[in-house]
Amino acid sequence: MAVTVVGSVAFDALETPFGKRDRILGGAATHFSLAASFFSDVRVVGVVGEDFGSEEFEVFAARGINMDDVEQVPGARSFFWSGLYEDDMAVAHTLDTQLNVFAEFDPKLSQHARESAILFLANIQPDLQRQVREQCNGAALVGLDSMNYWIESARSSLLETMRCVDTIVFNDAEVRMLTGEPNLARAAREIRELVGPRVLLVKQGAYGACMFTETSFFSIPAYPLETVIDPTGAGDAFAGGFFGFLDSLDEPDFDDNHLRCAAVLGSVMASYCVEDFGSERLQRLTRREIAERFEEFKHMTAFESPPVVAQLRR
Amino acid sequence: MAVTVVGSVAFDALETPFGKRDRILGGAATHFSLAASFFSDVRVVGVVGEDFGSEEFEVFAARGINMDDVEQVPGARSFFWSGLYEDDMAVAHTLDTQLNVFAEFDPKLSQHARESAILFLANIQPDLQRQVREQCNGAALVGLDSMNYWIESARSSLLETMRCVDTIVFNDAEVRMLTGEPNLARAAREIRELVGPRVLLVKQGAYGACMFTETSFFSIPAYPLETVIDPTGAGDAFAGGFFGFLDSLDEPDFDDNHLRCAAVLGSVMASYCVEDFGSERLQRLTRREIAERFEEFKHMTAFESPPVVAQLRR
Repeated sequence: MAVTVVGSVAFDALETPFGKRDRILGGAATHFSLAASFFSDVRVVGVVGEDFGSEEFEVFAARGINMDDVEQVPGARSFFWSGLYEDDMAVAHTLDTQLNVFAEFDPKLSQHARESAILFLANIQPDLQRQVREQCNGAALVGLDSMNYWIESARSSLLETMRCVDTIVFNDAEVRMLTGEPNLARAAREIRELVGPRVLLVKQGAYGACMFTETSFFSIPAYPLETVIDPTGAGDAFAGGFFGFLDSLDEPDFDDNHLRCAAVLGSVMASYCVEDFGSERLQRLTRREIAERFEEFKHMTAFESPPVVAQLRR
Repeated sequence: MAVTVVGSVAFDALETPFGKRDRILGGAATHFSLAASFFSDVRVVGVVGEDFGSEEFEVFAARGINMDDVEQVPGARSFFWSGLYEDDMAVAHTLDTQLNVFAEFDPKLSQHARESAILFLANIQPDLQRQVREQCNGAALVGLDSMNYWIESARSSLLETMRCVDTIVFNDAEVRMLTGEPNLARAAREIRELVGPRVLLVKQGAYGACMFTETSFFSIPAYPLETVIDPTGAGDAFAGGFFGFLDSLDEPDFDDNHLRCAAVLGSVMASYCVEDFGSERLQRLTRREIAERFEEFKHMTAFESPPVVAQLRR
């Protein structure tokens, strides 16, 4: 099987309290595909400019990521984002956004991409997300991310797209913005009633992530890193780990423990992602490191019921 | 064995988006002792005014809480706090604080209180906390809470008191304020290096709580309540569940799983506390409800390792 992701493949300029990068490989589909590639075959649908060179393509090739559905537009420049993080690494301040090739992006999927078992619609304009969704009617599982900008400027289109997917990956600010509801549990219920996803994942930055499904609630903390170098891409790395793992199963399904393990592996990938600028840490990550941190997540959250709890029932 | 808590026993006026109470039983020692009373014998050290009547004393008596060390000052009024919570229930706005009897509080512990195995210094002036600490030299385990006001106005006294305890219970804003460090893991390490507690518990409101010890990190989410009526006392109920459970063991110890279960039971008590105004929910709580929510916390955080994780190690 394979995961197809549609989203930005880009250049970023980043500044955090730990340093800066003037021009670095970025984009949601980049972080997603690198993270997912540790678990499954990944195919990127996107568009880049002539400035996207062999050095950049090599990063994907080194992880076996299929880039056949990435269109390269001659004479044009790739999507560019410039962001600044201050002491509070939770908030990215956008300094510059240049759509470039993305302004005219008209995704047309190859037959291979259309046949993927899992499709992830990374954060792009919701009409484009729906256009891709409609080309992948056979997907067993479709995920979606978005951002505050589309919630404000394209709300009805976004809601329509949300109704065509089964797994939504938002951060808590987006959940609250979409519903106007400060209580997360209530906001999650409103979203499930409004657009009916089977799974709602809520990324909570330094507080971890949680997952609302039809039958259960699951919460996983963030890995307690003493040094977060650059939060860029953490949410996409989370989604890459989540959907990549589900695609590694014999059949993608909605089994509760599978979804929970997917969320933990998503958290593992996000925790590594932020250890260096952009995708630099994911590029040098090993399978053994993923397994080790998964076990650390298990240890961070485990406890055995003491006898007193049984006694309380009497 | 028994837990002794020193702290405020008071009247509160509260307003939240869900209603208001003009005069309700409050105070850190009240919430702590009610929560701890489900697990162990509890003794309160404090001071009240003549306005503190049989109705208030009856709340403690109904839970078997020993009030012999609560001094009642004739002709004086009890400590009074008035607070307002807006839509974001994470922030309490203080409208009024009247120290009243607390202005002259000079805690003198009975022999029974001095002999408690566990002592909890709830949020009061740090010199007073130390004065109580020095009267309880035999305690196997001493916990401490504080607040932003003392961090700013009595920092050196607070640090001196922190050095005399082994378990510190702060919220994340207090941890960051004390250290000036936005990263929680790093701030926690700084506090452990500065004053050397064996256990640092960090309450994170709607995000749950986490615990740093010499050997491990543990995180527990908040219970995903759709309606939080009043957050007042949640932190003290957390501490009450934590220390009450540890006191229910044959010997209070620092066993990793015991500390983890204590943190879960603290979270259980905090989650019930916020379901109604002040201590109203804790007053009608049952042992069975505690056991049920403990199991829910277990289910909210549990996952089984999938085969793919073992394969990643190859």
